Amino acid sequence: MLEAQIHVTLKRSVLDPQGDTVRSGLATLGFQGVTDCRIGKFMVLHLAERDPVKARAQVDEMCRKLLANPVIEDYVFQICEVGE
Amino acid sequence: MLEAQIHVTLKRSVLDPQGDTVRSGLATLGFQGVTDCRIGKFMVLHLAERDPVKARAQVDEMCRKLLANPVIEDYVFQICEVGE
Repeated sequence: MLEAQIHVTLKRSVLDPQGDTVRSGLATLGFQGVTDCRIGKFMVLHLAERDPVKARAQVDEMCRKLLANPVIEDYVFQICEVGE
Repeated sequence: MLEAQIHVTLKRSVLDPQGDTVRSGLATLGFQGVTDCRIGKFMVLHLAERDPVKARAQVDEMCRKLLANPVIEDYVFQICEVGE
């Protein structure tokens, strides 16, 4: 079975208020040494498609159409063969 | 500089309604071949700590105390040396 592992992250130029909140929460808990925190999404899809080349094209289209917002987010993904 | 890359995912036994919604959205867009979709978080922390061993212990504690909910989530992370 093919599995797509997708990382969607905010572009460097985009502010990350969720990350800032987590950083401030960590500081409150005593972890003062976190100088930056960025939060993204990690998605794992299982695909019926068996051909890795076609799977790659499909997942790229999924990212552009739904999974990522290309205005403010970047995405990278890998396609892996995994056991059923 | 040390960077922690953390993946927080729902445990296998926990339902993922967000993932189901994305899968159904993908199907509506014509991507019928997604048999499963799970959504997790991907966090990148920059650390003031220079010692990778200490950094690893700190990040593990951050995950247990704030970044992950150990009742329903698993976490894995790696510590990398990156350019300033």
